[in-house]
Amino acid sequence: MSRTFASDNNSGAHPAALVAIAEANDGHVHAYGDDPWTVRGVRAVRSHVGESAEVFFVFNGTGANCTGLSAVLRHGDCVISAATAHIATDECGAPERLTGCKVLTVPTSDGKLRPADVEPLLAALGVEHHSQPRAISISQVAETGTIYTAEEVRALADLAHAHGMYLHMDGARLANAAVALGSPIAAFTTDAGVDILSFGGTKNGLLFGEAVCFLAQGLGDRFKFERKSGGQLASKMRYIGAQFAAVYGSSVWFECADAANRMAAKLAAGARAAGVEVLWDPRANEVFALLEPDVMRHLQAVADFYEWEPRGEKMIVRWVCSWDTTDEDVDAFVAAIPAASGGTS
Amino acid sequence: MSRTFASDNNSGAHPAALVAIAEANDGHVHAYGDDPWTVRGVRAVRSHVGESAEVFFVFNGTGANCTGLSAVLRHGDCVISAATAHIATDECGAPERLTGCKVLTVPTSDGKLRPADVEPLLAALGVEHHSQPRAISISQVAETGTIYTAEEVRALADLAHAHGMYLHMDGARLANAAVALGSPIAAFTTDAGVDILSFGGTKNGLLFGEAVCFLAQGLGDRFKFERKSGGQLASKMRYIGAQFAAVYGSSVWFECADAANRMAAKLAAGARAAGVEVLWDPRANEVFALLEPDVMRHLQAVADFYEWEPRGEKMIVRWVCSWDTTDEDVDAFVAAIPAASGGTS
Amino acid sequence: MSRTFASDNNSGAHPAALVAIAEANDGHVHAYGDDPWTVRGVRAVRSHVGESAEVFFVFNGTGANCTGLSAVLRHGDCVISAATAHIATDECGAPERLTGCKVLTVPTSDGKLRPADVEPLLAALGVEHHSQPRAISISQVAETGTIYTAEEVRALADLAHAHGMYLHMDGARLANAAVALGSPIAAFTTDAGVDILSFGGTKNGLLFGEAVCFLAQGLGDRFKFERKSGGQLASKMRYIGAQFAAVYGSSVWFECADAANRMAAKLAAGARAAGVEVLWDPRANEVFALLEPDVMRHLQAVADFYEWEPRGEKMIVRWVCSWDTTDEDVDAFVAAIPAASGGTS
Amino acid sequence: MSRTFASDNNSGAHPAALVAIAEANDGHVHAYGDDPWTVRGVRAVRSHVGESAEVFFVFNGTGANCTGLSAVLRHGDCVISAATAHIATDECGAPERLTGCKVLTVPTSDGKLRPADVEPLLAALGVEHHSQPRAISISQVAETGTIYTAEEVRALADLAHAHGMYLHMDGARLANAAVALGSPIAAFTTDAGVDILSFGGTKNGLLFGEAVCFLAQGLGDRFKFERKSGGQLASKMRYIGAQFAAVYGSSVWFECADAANRMAAKLAAGARAAGVEVLWDPRANEVFALLEPDVMRHLQAVADFYEWEPRGEKMIVRWVCSWDTTDEDVDAFVAAIPAASGGTS
Repeated sequence: MSRTFASDNNSGAHPAALVAIAEANDGHVHAYGDDPWTVRGVRAVRSHVGESAEVFFVFNGTGANCTGLSAVLRHGDCVISAATAHIATDECGAPERLTGCKVLTVPTSDGKLRPADVEPLLAALGVEHHSQPRAISISQVAETGTIYTAEEVRALADLAHAHGMYLHMDGARLANAAVALGSPIAAFTTDAGVDILSFGGTKNGLLFGEAVCFLAQGLGDRFKFERKSGGQLASKMRYIGAQFAAVYGSSVWFECADAANRMAAKLAAGARAAGVEVLWDPRANEVFALLEPDVMRHLQAVADFYEWEPRGEKMIVRWVCSWDTTDEDVDAFVAAIPAASGGTS
Repeated sequence: MSRTFASDNNSGAHPAALVAIAEANDGHVHAYGDDPWTVRGVRAVRSHVGESAEVFFVFNGTGANCTGLSAVLRHGDCVISAATAHIATDECGAPERLTGCKVLTVPTSDGKLRPADVEPLLAALGVEHHSQPRAISISQVAETGTIYTAEEVRALADLAHAHGMYLHMDGARLANAAVALGSPIAAFTTDAGVDILSFGGTKNGLLFGEAVCFLAQGLGDRFKFERKSGGQLASKMRYIGAQFAAVYGSSVWFECADAANRMAAKLAAGARAAGVEVLWDPRANEVFALLEPDVMRHLQAVADFYEWEPRGEKMIVRWVCSWDTTDEDVDAFVAAIPAASGGTS
Repeated sequence: MSRTFASDNNSGAHPAALVAIAEANDGHVHAYGDDPWTVRGVRAVRSHVGESAEVFFVFNGTGANCTGLSAVLRHGDCVISAATAHIATDECGAPERLTGCKVLTVPTSDGKLRPADVEPLLAALGVEHHSQPRAISISQVAETGTIYTAEEVRALADLAHAHGMYLHMDGARLANAAVALGSPIAAFTTDAGVDILSFGGTKNGLLFGEAVCFLAQGLGDRFKFERKSGGQLASKMRYIGAQFAAVYGSSVWFECADAANRMAAKLAAGARAAGVEVLWDPRANEVFALLEPDVMRHLQAVADFYEWEPRGEKMIVRWVCSWDTTDEDVDAFVAAIPAASGGTS
Repeated sequence: MSRTFASDNNSGAHPAALVAIAEANDGHVHAYGDDPWTVRGVRAVRSHVGESAEVFFVFNGTGANCTGLSAVLRHGDCVISAATAHIATDECGAPERLTGCKVLTVPTSDGKLRPADVEPLLAALGVEHHSQPRAISISQVAETGTIYTAEEVRALADLAHAHGMYLHMDGARLANAAVALGSPIAAFTTDAGVDILSFGGTKNGLLFGEAVCFLAQGLGDRFKFERKSGGQLASKMRYIGAQFAAVYGSSVWFECADAANRMAAKLAAGARAAGVEVLWDPRANEVFALLEPDVMRHLQAVADFYEWEPRGEKMIVRWVCSWDTTDEDVDAFVAAIPAASGGTS
């Protein structure tokens, strides 16, 4: 099937992930992670988030977010997120089901949470009638395609820690953020005070597999029970470990994210040049644009993409580039804009 | 790593699964199951359990069991299983966490549940103080290596249905049972009255992936929300679908299970000939034997395996054969028994 | 302790409730509701909501809301409420914990939910990534002191039913609403399409006790298990039944609510005459007023009340009248306003 | 209704509890426990379990057990109890629903758990596939009418603490145990190492109300959120506090339990003298006897009681005495035994 701009989940796996799986398919090893491939995968992740991080592989992003948060949430607690956060909008209530706790959302202008958004909610602390804020969750890249700087992450971490709370990061597109920021992953995670990190694999070239990383000492002490009781323990874990080792233990992760980001930048520039209003500031692999409905439909026929939400008469749409998006893909799409736009005039 | 008798989760994937994954790694497709590979995988599963079955892929066996059961359990309900059932002993409480319901266990002589085991528990029906039996769960192959005949399954299904309950089957080793019974899978599932089936993939040659099958009409109507809120929805689902299509849409599934079963039979026969007491009647790919502790330790040094539970001074041990277990593996292990046994005299 | 305007939970019980309890304290009766007092209590509630209603007593409002909603919510579902709803803000996440589902909130101008608030959220229906709206929950009286007319309730019920959803009403102050509307309770509950009703007792003269009423056929079929597994089954239920029979099987409920509403109207009028801005339209027993912080503190020293939320430099405060609030209570408070206000000039 | 031997939940409230409620019904006090009656109730409970105990009132026994246990259980944990424990058999799965955790049961000879029953289950500790034993729960009085000595409690507490676990006591009939043991409540709770105690009220003369006591430092730190999110926070808490103050802050608790125990002893002696086999050793207020079905039915017509479970052709029945059971009640019942027994010969 031809490439679209619908989702980085629609792209396949990078060849390096496939090769790694084939190599790992060698005889018998212990199940459930006590195998050399998992060890290598953990080592690869630690090379990005620090040697003292506790790293656990799980199947998918929802599983990573929900079990990771559950490790610190108790009955009556809540997690604070942006209203646009994946945990709030796109996990079908898995956080509530798996943690038993509330996700308390705040509207934001650009999908990024700031201390001033969170502070008013902290009045609930200590009052037994209100869910107790126990974690702040941010997405890096945010669901709007925006990126937190290390300083912005640190400000939220400091706020969280000052109130006995934890900072959780949904890093489904962590690699894209690192490339965009031009900094190591640790700079805006471990070093910026993140406590719990969903370290993304699937959207950046893996077939499947994410990692839950506990960056603060001790938080992961009993996570293996959290993971197993949450249905997220892979029996043949070597296949996740091997992929992480191959992609995040080499330069493949960077190349994948860099390619996706560059194509998104090219797409944004091309769309703007063609007169399309591009929202927020696309720095990673997602571009949000404001289109007339007719233009949207014409362009979706060229290469599929999703509607995000209406704004007045127009529609905000999302274009996502993947590790395998090509210059030709972008060129063809951008080239189609004028005709599509003409269709509405 | 050399092959052991520890677990069929320790074996790798059949080459056909790897080839299928490589073939499915072709450009972009819709995520979350709306892709041709998932369609083929569903078709392959339906070829075993009937065209009207509703089939949903999930990541692993615990996920399959818990979300499948959750589809029919309501607050205050319970599921009845053998005390040895995987859902009762080896899922770290995931059923309780994911369903909010109790797993009510019954001791059995051989790991198989019979109507007479269940009937006394049905006195709870209608009494608000007691958890309400809503499902009976059996494992095929049972955790003791024993197998339910189609008639035995039917008897439990009839009992369940007569009381407004459902019959769930944990089919992690479904293929091994089919081969051992010499009958199609449908014969002891769909045709025998099973309502909800965890259709096993991982233990029979896949890298990962199981299927939840609703064999009774309507039970799966809202399962997609159950699956997503349970953290079991794969974004790049094509890789699960492709494996099922390759393994269960061909003769590979049979060859894998048949090989494992034959090696187990050979192992049981060899052990018996060497004077070892083999428990129950190993007809699938698991052999349970009673060993002196010293003999056990000697043999574990030859090829690893797990202790099951003590019986008096001796230990019941479990030997599991996989799709890739060879005659040489078995011969070498059996040949070591006399010396190991001599070590204790 | 002297009466305040802090909460109708701060008032005691009406003497009729105490007398009823003393009368019910007569020898042995079956526990758990199979007793004549519970029968009479159910009869009293049914006299307000219809003979075919299924009525179950529980301990408190949070218990009533959460178990009542849980009866219709499944994994992956959500309930839609106003952002100010008690279930969203004042139950410490009990709905999420007890139902496993999300409470999806909508900002409103006056605490009342309208079809136009709900409709945009229904786009989620059928999409597996999003929590599935399964119930709309409204509070009557709303947490802002406003009241739904029967027509407004009906409009929400119609919307809910058109989408396979249910309408839940948190009727903690149901009696106050009935008195304010000058209509029978059934007019804006059963007859207006409400499916599940938390029928309030505690805030209207009882010591403790609420009723969960299923007004649509069949919804309560297995509620007894929901109630018991939710920890809301009273062993000596006769003491709840007797109170409901005494208060809601006579005119006491009306007298209590009428008294509270009249004192609130008097308080609102007095405050307005003294120059205080009263918000929304206080028709039941709650008055919301906008005060300078200094004025607020002066008045809290006269008779305690709670801050609701800041609005600019001022504070919105809540004054609640109870069944036992007296003219003297209101007169004294209103008389203190000028001096308190002078304190800030 | 005349008194029966069915349940101590069938008896009414002691007059002292009613008087206390009437006295507490005095004007406005803060809701949710910030009132003088709750303070007095807490003081009364502390006079039995120690000044440093953290004491929280809840509605009922199921609520007390489930929220108390939930305070120490995390996902993947389990609580170990006797197979006959109320939490395992008579709470309709509320523990699983409210804690998300498994109740792991052990068969016992007499309803009492002993270290040797628990030890084999501790092999699960640290193994991620198995629910992690985190608490041992015992009932004092046990559901079979038997009583733990302080030494027996201590042995279980030591075992629990040696493995990082907690000892929970379901003290629904705590008072009866204290009277039977002739010792202060603290002797077999706080001083014997109990960490979490459900301190019973309802079965010993209250209308409703139990207390969750944390006897080990720090365990109750965030229990108020556990209680509220579990639906167990009473708004007009003064009525629970006042009852505890009246009954447990005086000699009433002792008189109630002593009366019930003495009547049970008399009943057991009378039944034995009439040739009935009495099981276990009835020392508190419950007597278990083995009856022919015909005898049972004759006697149930004299004064109702419940069947416990069949034993061969006979039935084990339970006779419970309450604080208000009289000598005449027992005499009349015992006098009926010969005729009832004759009916079967």
